[in-house]
Amino acid sequence: MKIGRQSHTTTSISTANAEAIIVRGRDLCQELVGHYGFTDYIWLLITGQPPSSAQRRMLDATLVAIAEHGLVPSVQASRMTLAAAPEAFQGAVAAGILGCGSVILGAADEERKAIAGYGHPLHKGEDPRASKLLEIAREEANDGAHIEIALIVQRLLPEIIGKPLVLNVSGAIPAVLLDAGFPILALKGIPILARTAGLIGHLLEEQLRPVGFVLSHAAARAVTYEGPVPDGFRADDR
Amino acid sequence: MKIGRQSHTTTSISTANAEAIIVRGRDLCQELVGHYGFTDYIWLLITGQPPSSAQRRMLDATLVAIAEHGLVPSVQASRMTLAAAPEAFQGAVAAGILGCGSVILGAADEERKAIAGYGHPLHKGEDPRASKLLEIAREEANDGAHIEIALIVQRLLPEIIGKPLVLNVSGAIPAVLLDAGFPILALKGIPILARTAGLIGHLLEEQLRPVGFVLSHAAARAVTYEGPVPDGFRADDR
Amino acid sequence: MKIGRQSHTTTSISTANAEAIIVRGRDLCQELVGHYGFTDYIWLLITGQPPSSAQRRMLDATLVAIAEHGLVPSVQASRMTLAAAPEAFQGAVAAGILGCGSVILGAADEERKAIAGYGHPLHKGEDPRASKLLEIAREEANDGAHIEIALIVQRLLPEIIGKPLVLNVSGAIPAVLLDAGFPILALKGIPILARTAGLIGHLLEEQLRPVGFVLSHAAARAVTYEGPVPDGFRADDR
Amino acid sequence: MKIGRQSHTTTSISTANAEAIIVRGRDLCQELVGHYGFTDYIWLLITGQPPSSAQRRMLDATLVAIAEHGLVPSVQASRMTLAAAPEAFQGAVAAGILGCGSVILGAADEERKAIAGYGHPLHKGEDPRASKLLEIAREEANDGAHIEIALIVQRLLPEIIGKPLVLNVSGAIPAVLLDAGFPILALKGIPILARTAGLIGHLLEEQLRPVGFVLSHAAARAVTYEGPVPDGFRADDR
Repeated sequence: MKIGRQSHTTTSISTANAEAIIVRGRDLCQELVGHYGFTDYIWLLITGQPPSSAQRRMLDATLVAIAEHGLVPSVQASRMTLAAAPEAFQGAVAAGILGCGSVILGAADEERKAIAGYGHPLHKGEDPRASKLLEIAREEANDGAHIEIALIVQRLLPEIIGKPLVLNVSGAIPAVLLDAGFPILALKGIPILARTAGLIGHLLEEQLRPVGFVLSHAAARAVTYEGPVPDGFRADDR
Repeated sequence: MKIGRQSHTTTSISTANAEAIIVRGRDLCQELVGHYGFTDYIWLLITGQPPSSAQRRMLDATLVAIAEHGLVPSVQASRMTLAAAPEAFQGAVAAGILGCGSVILGAADEERKAIAGYGHPLHKGEDPRASKLLEIAREEANDGAHIEIALIVQRLLPEIIGKPLVLNVSGAIPAVLLDAGFPILALKGIPILARTAGLIGHLLEEQLRPVGFVLSHAAARAVTYEGPVPDGFRADDR
Repeated sequence: MKIGRQSHTTTSISTANAEAIIVRGRDLCQELVGHYGFTDYIWLLITGQPPSSAQRRMLDATLVAIAEHGLVPSVQASRMTLAAAPEAFQGAVAAGILGCGSVILGAADEERKAIAGYGHPLHKGEDPRASKLLEIAREEANDGAHIEIALIVQRLLPEIIGKPLVLNVSGAIPAVLLDAGFPILALKGIPILARTAGLIGHLLEEQLRPVGFVLSHAAARAVTYEGPVPDGFRADDR
Repeated sequence: MKIGRQSHTTTSISTANAEAIIVRGRDLCQELVGHYGFTDYIWLLITGQPPSSAQRRMLDATLVAIAEHGLVPSVQASRMTLAAAPEAFQGAVAAGILGCGSVILGAADEERKAIAGYGHPLHKGEDPRASKLLEIAREEANDGAHIEIALIVQRLLPEIIGKPLVLNVSGAIPAVLLDAGFPILALKGIPILARTAGLIGHLLEEQLRPVGFVLSHAAARAVTYEGPVPDGFRADDR
């Protein structure tokens, strides 16, 4: 059964024969391993071209800015998953990545719909990561239309929604990367890649000093059962 | 319900207040963003210390060596998943990561049990990535006991299993990273992190020039139904 | 850090003490295990109430209709994942489930945007599963406004898009289940639950008579590398 | 590149033409939808044969026994994932399934290695689900060698490890299903399938009365940062 009609039958990322692996037109073992840093290679893999030094610095800065922010929900999900399924490190990483969705680093708010990219539950005055990314973009003369729009929105928000909301790191990353020429359809990959690095640190710690079940025990105690019970049933003290 | 007894209730990776995010004892926005490359930050996140220049070069080399090798099964699973669920980029990455298991880059073999870390279905003479990683380790004076053991095993294999099998990239990476002081319990994270970069390149290409259903259509044609059918049923020509 | 404001702190699904597990107000071991079929229990878990006999029959019919349709992309992704990571059965199931997204059973079409719930690449005349589900709904006097709307859309489509497209199984399932009183926010769970059953069958077969790498080998041959190569590089015959 | 050598190129689960879908030799729309309950179909999909009434009752009983046990770690991971990525219901289910690993329902214990299938952190006297499953097996005259072995182990444990540990539900399920003729290589699918049903209930509740961030907030408070901080850094009161 053919699902969907697709007219493309090519890839332009890599090929190989018995002697050599070619990635983006370069010989992996002759030109890349040992010569390219990982950041350069990420840019090459995604865009097909090596980065300029400003592009490399912006990509490094965004990946470093977003890789780690403590025991956020996706890290908890990952550590709990490793605790329950220690045989599958890759499963625990996958569980963590699955939380890198539209509410990541969340400005979600039940009562008022959040403005994606603006505001932060902890960093209310300013998100220091966003400010730093904009500063680096200016240093690298890498600030263009996307950053400008992001700042215009920030300036207009108090008028529109009746309160100030500062640009957060999730709003700053697309702005600085798009101004650096990074492809828009790969933007969702940036927090995923960065967080994967953070997750590995957490999963190493989880193996050495496990807290996965401590987390889930505390979490379960925060929620009460509210529903019918059979006659005579008495909840345990937990 | 408390599952498992865990005596640890601490993490030493990061903390934050309203003004600053601290990672491994350093102020994220003052000391890390803009100053650390992603590779340095990965090493810091995982080990708690910045890398030496030899450690950085080995980590870069291993990540570059393993990030991309064409339309391998995990990449196909990822691209098919994006084709079927385009709303969830993170789900497609997760599907790709879930294939980073014990047979990754596979030397699996139905009839004869493979020796993990040795032999490769395509690179039979030598795995050029393995050779390159060992060469870099020697250049960096970073070759120690783990590399030595890996090479001793390679030398003894013909005698033990009756045929030569060369060290492959999956065998070389643990050897060079352990000799560089990388923690053994985080080794499984290296191919996952590297492949995540490769997957982003493929998922960008999948959005621009989709082949996910082309892949699955060709795959389905390679397998025939062999089982009972009701009277009168005639298979379509596919 | 508190991400998002959430005012609820209760669950009404289950509770337990050392002697008994209570689910939806019933004692699991006294009232449910041995007395409830799985379908009844699914309905109880999701809605809080046991199903009527018409509701049970509709839920059974939809789950049976959608559980299996051969080597579709999500099944291939799952079987390839088990081939690469045989240590994690749950990872292979998860990879399969991640393809249960918005293009599942796909009527995706590159050139023309598909109408979700209508048309099918293989079953062009009618989708026999959709017809059967509507027939059962009528038998059970379970046909209401949602089925009516689905059929009205089918009748109007030729006029709107210039060609007939019949209701497919992905369109019929919401219609019959909503008419049966199933909660709309749990509808996405139905294909996932059904497919999980199908995936277990495939993953058993994959262990007994593996084709995961056969699938990926054939798939890879369907796509050609089109891009630069270094001087002197010659692709292998594959 | 051909990874792994696989000699099989057939599947015996299903096939289709434009008019009919055949599953395990039966016409899906003529013989199965509307006639088979989901449990019967699960058994057929996995084993190739419809179940006897004793087999159906055992499969129903095991699925009902294990589908739901409150806010266990995998349910928390799933609800947190939906909170962070509400666009991908399938991703939240996948995250929950990834925790269905070797420590599921955990009898993990840091200090003493647990005996898989015996003992339970909450149900210390007996696991009422295990007892019920054995009772049903006896009622259905479905008790054979596997149940016998499970009980012999339970009887010998006090002598071997110096304390009694009762058979838990994770130990009882393989015993009763293997005695019923269920294939051993599909056993891992049973908790996954059952839990998927439970997860759908939780993910519906999560959409109606979200607690995902309540869970993660409470969990994060249970773990303290213990590591260096820059001069002058003061943790917030959380």
